[in-house]
Amino acid sequence: VRADVLRFPLPDPGDVSSLRQAIATGAVNPREIVAVIGKTHGNGLVNDYTRGFLAQSLALLISAATGETPDAVRKRIPFIFSGGVEGVLSPHYSVFTATPSPANASGEKALAIGAAFTPELKPEDIGRQRQIDLTADAVIQAMRAARIESPSDVHFVQVKGPAFTQADIVTAAMAGGKPASDNPGKLMGLGRAASALGVGKALGEIAANHAIESAIGKDFNVFSSVASCSAGVEVRVNEIVVVGVSSKWSGSLAIEHAAMTDALDTAGIRQVLSRLNFPEAVQVSTEQASRIRTAFVKCEASRHGTIRGKSHTMLNDGDIDQQRHIRAAVGAIVASIINDTAIFVSGGAEHQGPDGGGMIAIIAERAA
Amino acid sequence: VRADVLRFPLPDPGDVSSLRQAIATGAVNPREIVAVIGKTHGNGLVNDYTRGFLAQSLALLISAATGETPDAVRKRIPFIFSGGVEGVLSPHYSVFTATPSPANASGEKALAIGAAFTPELKPEDIGRQRQIDLTADAVIQAMRAARIESPSDVHFVQVKGPAFTQADIVTAAMAGGKPASDNPGKLMGLGRAASALGVGKALGEIAANHAIESAIGKDFNVFSSVASCSAGVEVRVNEIVVVGVSSKWSGSLAIEHAAMTDALDTAGIRQVLSRLNFPEAVQVSTEQASRIRTAFVKCEASRHGTIRGKSHTMLNDGDIDQQRHIRAAVGAIVASIINDTAIFVSGGAEHQGPDGGGMIAIIAERAA
Amino acid sequence: VRADVLRFPLPDPGDVSSLRQAIATGAVNPREIVAVIGKTHGNGLVNDYTRGFLAQSLALLISAATGETPDAVRKRIPFIFSGGVEGVLSPHYSVFTATPSPANASGEKALAIGAAFTPELKPEDIGRQRQIDLTADAVIQAMRAARIESPSDVHFVQVKGPAFTQADIVTAAMAGGKPASDNPGKLMGLGRAASALGVGKALGEIAANHAIESAIGKDFNVFSSVASCSAGVEVRVNEIVVVGVSSKWSGSLAIEHAAMTDALDTAGIRQVLSRLNFPEAVQVSTEQASRIRTAFVKCEASRHGTIRGKSHTMLNDGDIDQQRHIRAAVGAIVASIINDTAIFVSGGAEHQGPDGGGMIAIIAERAA
Amino acid sequence: VRADVLRFPLPDPGDVSSLRQAIATGAVNPREIVAVIGKTHGNGLVNDYTRGFLAQSLALLISAATGETPDAVRKRIPFIFSGGVEGVLSPHYSVFTATPSPANASGEKALAIGAAFTPELKPEDIGRQRQIDLTADAVIQAMRAARIESPSDVHFVQVKGPAFTQADIVTAAMAGGKPASDNPGKLMGLGRAASALGVGKALGEIAANHAIESAIGKDFNVFSSVASCSAGVEVRVNEIVVVGVSSKWSGSLAIEHAAMTDALDTAGIRQVLSRLNFPEAVQVSTEQASRIRTAFVKCEASRHGTIRGKSHTMLNDGDIDQQRHIRAAVGAIVASIINDTAIFVSGGAEHQGPDGGGMIAIIAERAA
Repeated sequence: VRADVLRFPLPDPGDVSSLRQAIATGAVNPREIVAVIGKTHGNGLVNDYTRGFLAQSLALLISAATGETPDAVRKRIPFIFSGGVEGVLSPHYSVFTATPSPANASGEKALAIGAAFTPELKPEDIGRQRQIDLTADAVIQAMRAARIESPSDVHFVQVKGPAFTQADIVTAAMAGGKPASDNPGKLMGLGRAASALGVGKALGEIAANHAIESAIGKDFNVFSSVASCSAGVEVRVNEIVVVGVSSKWSGSLAIEHAAMTDALDTAGIRQVLSRLNFPEAVQVSTEQASRIRTAFVKCEASRHGTIRGKSHTMLNDGDIDQQRHIRAAVGAIVASIINDTAIFVSGGAEHQGPDGGGMIAIIAERAA
Repeated sequence: VRADVLRFPLPDPGDVSSLRQAIATGAVNPREIVAVIGKTHGNGLVNDYTRGFLAQSLALLISAATGETPDAVRKRIPFIFSGGVEGVLSPHYSVFTATPSPANASGEKALAIGAAFTPELKPEDIGRQRQIDLTADAVIQAMRAARIESPSDVHFVQVKGPAFTQADIVTAAMAGGKPASDNPGKLMGLGRAASALGVGKALGEIAANHAIESAIGKDFNVFSSVASCSAGVEVRVNEIVVVGVSSKWSGSLAIEHAAMTDALDTAGIRQVLSRLNFPEAVQVSTEQASRIRTAFVKCEASRHGTIRGKSHTMLNDGDIDQQRHIRAAVGAIVASIINDTAIFVSGGAEHQGPDGGGMIAIIAERAA
Repeated sequence: VRADVLRFPLPDPGDVSSLRQAIATGAVNPREIVAVIGKTHGNGLVNDYTRGFLAQSLALLISAATGETPDAVRKRIPFIFSGGVEGVLSPHYSVFTATPSPANASGEKALAIGAAFTPELKPEDIGRQRQIDLTADAVIQAMRAARIESPSDVHFVQVKGPAFTQADIVTAAMAGGKPASDNPGKLMGLGRAASALGVGKALGEIAANHAIESAIGKDFNVFSSVASCSAGVEVRVNEIVVVGVSSKWSGSLAIEHAAMTDALDTAGIRQVLSRLNFPEAVQVSTEQASRIRTAFVKCEASRHGTIRGKSHTMLNDGDIDQQRHIRAAVGAIVASIINDTAIFVSGGAEHQGPDGGGMIAIIAERAA
Repeated sequence: VRADVLRFPLPDPGDVSSLRQAIATGAVNPREIVAVIGKTHGNGLVNDYTRGFLAQSLALLISAATGETPDAVRKRIPFIFSGGVEGVLSPHYSVFTATPSPANASGEKALAIGAAFTPELKPEDIGRQRQIDLTADAVIQAMRAARIESPSDVHFVQVKGPAFTQADIVTAAMAGGKPASDNPGKLMGLGRAASALGVGKALGEIAANHAIESAIGKDFNVFSSVASCSAGVEVRVNEIVVVGVSSKWSGSLAIEHAAMTDALDTAGIRQVLSRLNFPEAVQVSTEQASRIRTAFVKCEASRHGTIRGKSHTMLNDGDIDQQRHIRAAVGAIVASIINDTAIFVSGGAEHQGPDGGGMIAIIAERAA
């Protein structure tokens, strides 16, 4: 099989006309879509309904094109959306397809992708060992689906797990459940953290005896450098997409990743570009930028309140959530270097990359 | 005279202890302070009172140190603060001093600074020809104070003018005045625009027949590339600080500036660094960064809704003001390149640099 | 025919399970639905996509139930949603149905409802005479559909018109159109104003020579006291729902309305309750509150910056939009009096009720 | 002594000209000021600097009038400001004075006021037993200062305690302290809760064995019905103002209070008005409203996510903090009943009144 990644602009979470046209012209075969990952217009927090709106819009479109029911589409294809296109960022979605094709004759590894889902998670499962372990299982399952043989060939694992509103949490508590937090936003963060530990455990980045509930929010030396975890009220399971390289796949796309040690770690960004053979430059040229298929960034406001010794104000702000601040900032830094604003930037990097930093992964066509 | 620029961290707009200590140790002579320019914690919009709080705090501190009344301090020293330290930005203030000293023996031009104030401006003057013309007059006066002989030696003109609340505007209208807008935020923007035209007119960047009220918000080809204009409810006149180079001044500080053509224009940033002899690099090294005394950036969300062909959402957002978005983004880009987050980044670049872009100026010690 | 109004809770703009169940049990016949009016979770401003999400969700549900296509459903049924459930307000939607039934034997007038749509409106039509006139035509058409004979029997006219993003406005301008504002939020307000003038013109509240473009935003003595106008990016025409009473309809529901002269005008609220025979009380009792089927409120932050002589800050606020402030405030006042938080409260009352105030309409069962 | 309460409008946190004028005309003797309580323009959260700005402005004004140093003024007079004038609320401050005067000849109790301060509190003291106990001690001290003999004569206890920024919390933790939360906003809430328990303990509303750290945020049946607690970065101790009635004081002012059982509890508001002999009415008449000297309200978004069985969205909102929502709503309800928008409304009512509700206290002239 051959993996392809096509990015489409999103004028409105209900407007999927770009993909509709691509299906109409045959550029995308809707049955070959294996995942969609994108950035929507909302705030990326609990009350962000733009993710669910886009998911419903895509399910309808693909359902109409394939004859599947919308529910069947949503069970087959992970739709992973993160809200928040602050600053220069541009709303978009990247469609991943897998097309039958012989492996590369050269034996060169090519972009590989696989998906899996955990069972349904309840409010009391979020941020708990159960979420860690179920996520780890699903990551292994997704690696198998992607036919990626070694964890070192995995460069990006996107997880989208459930978020719950105040009403959901109260209902769960009244039924005897013990959610890890009664604050919807905080529970969202605990879920991202547990998911990250699950990814790290599956890939051997984190020893099983460290991939434990009690490390969450405590020991930030425990992290995965390929995990990118989001949460949203529009899903009820952890949806997992594993992206890497495999000799079983063909095509000319490659993926690389690196940790970002802090918000200003441009060296991490350049490292990924260098591995993908982009020439050294303050900014990727327009011509070279056309090789980039999509980019994923995870970032967070440093917990100790400073960046390179100077204070930031993101964690004291009652008007703008810290995630919106950091997405605007790190998103712009990455955009300015790779010369592309339609990138997936997600805040809330608990245990996803080094404390106060995060990670970046880029999918690009190999240099000619 | 020799100009110096010292930057101090600002933990809280009421906490000026860093400057207090610098005065106590003799590092700063309070009578030699000629201007203070800084970034405070507020939203940078009409209801931002952190600028006024810092101004009051500094006036009290300097008053106590010099024996002047607080009012006399505020009439002598322009306090120019811009609210909004979004993303990675760090609240701070830069203190400009002028110390008696012979001119550089080498004849090399050195950093020069001068200030001036317009007469008081009323709501109905904002965004009008009167504001343009009074600003132009004051810029010329400030140039003279700075003993800068040629407009080409001016690299940065900071203007802080009045903003008015709804109550002020209504009062003015009832008294027969005709404010250019009845919307406080919009009037703030018209004031920045008129101030910029005044700067451009004074420096010959804009021909007198283009530095006219009717060009405001209409003809964005008319701009100053050294003007940086803010507004706030805490002032009632246009306060002007001109920074450039002059053979009448001494010392080892230099200033350079460049236009930024859009939000991703890293080339503009690098241009200023090159002129200041910083080695080519994606990011200025920590060692080299210690040469930077302060940096000023002006930016705006592009009016046509796209950046390099991809849509942004800043102008449709009802939750976060466009200025907060763009400061977070462009501030982070500049910070990542110059390796410094305590920079002055101001949004609302109407007629200040190219449409959709802005300008950057950096003061640094000359390379050894 | 007999009109009925059923209110359903909305846990999420994508969750229409309450109506689904009502259809399943036969409580609602989906073919008899003539309009849906509701409050969704978003900010009620340009970038509010919760309105479109709910519209899509309802169209799918009704389409599945009736066999119509989703598009046909949306052409048949006006879905009118206003975002913003600030403070105590509760997200919900009211489903209006019309069921074949003989007129009341008593000859007593009963609740009557009718809908109509204008042709498509472009960015350059918004806030213009064309929007005023097309709206007036559609109101007359909707009155006829409702078989309401006299304008004095009309108690509520809800209009939902198009809003446009920055991209839409720029595209229109480049194609030669002249939108009345290049600011998406401001254009939204001009559209509400023009729609209100159209309603007032149709009902004879506003003389034709005052229902003119040049009165918009200028002459606030020109207003309709039954118009409630919203705008959103999810529609492209003015959707109009006229609610009143008619001897051609049957049933026990009544509607009354009153102007609110300012944000604290509890007398206006009590006036409507009295006309509907609710006993005098600071708060409607729980038992009496069960008679209320739905309530509509329109309100605005007073332009002169004061309420009963004391200043408010809503128009100076850069963090929270004035509409969100005033909805939270007036919504809570109405909720506290009628003892019901699932009410339709909409901000931006330009020419809808007296300047600085707005209007209220309540549909209730007649007292036994 | 005779207590008086004068309210002044606050156009800007730096503009205390109304009090300046009152001092100039002799209407207020600055040496007789015993407390100032007010509402400022900020967000009422961690990064609200309008409270500190007003405190500084008042200290300067009073210092200039009395010859005390500003520091001495701040040690003598509690300045208790709460940020957030959402919706119809009007920024203002109430100045409490105590003037030598014989007790009422009638023996009738009159308004009494007293203040006290705890020792300095560190981040690790907030939300802890130490804060509970020190607050209880200070409340007793303030009661004594007010010469109020019985706890049942206490109708209002305002506490203003410290809030800490992320930097403060991190510094404390690095020095070995163990703050109860590493989240600045959450720590603020824990501090309000501990302060409330201290008030309840001092007044005997809460048994000593229930006024314990472990009850905080857990057992909401434990509450004080007269406590109103705020926190802010501008103070470092708990400042306490006790207001009640005492036969040792004279004058015609009275105070009453009541619990509010939920956000819509208009009966609680009416109860206070009735006790103060305001005639029954949906809204206090303008004439009667002139008797009101000031009003204090404490409120919160109900934790279980519903109000009278209908869901609210305040706790899921990532754009507007729950405190801003509830202040806008409950503030407007109270304002609409007492016909006055310059009222002190504070959110975050943890253990201050019943769960999901809060309390209200009104100071008014006795009816003639």
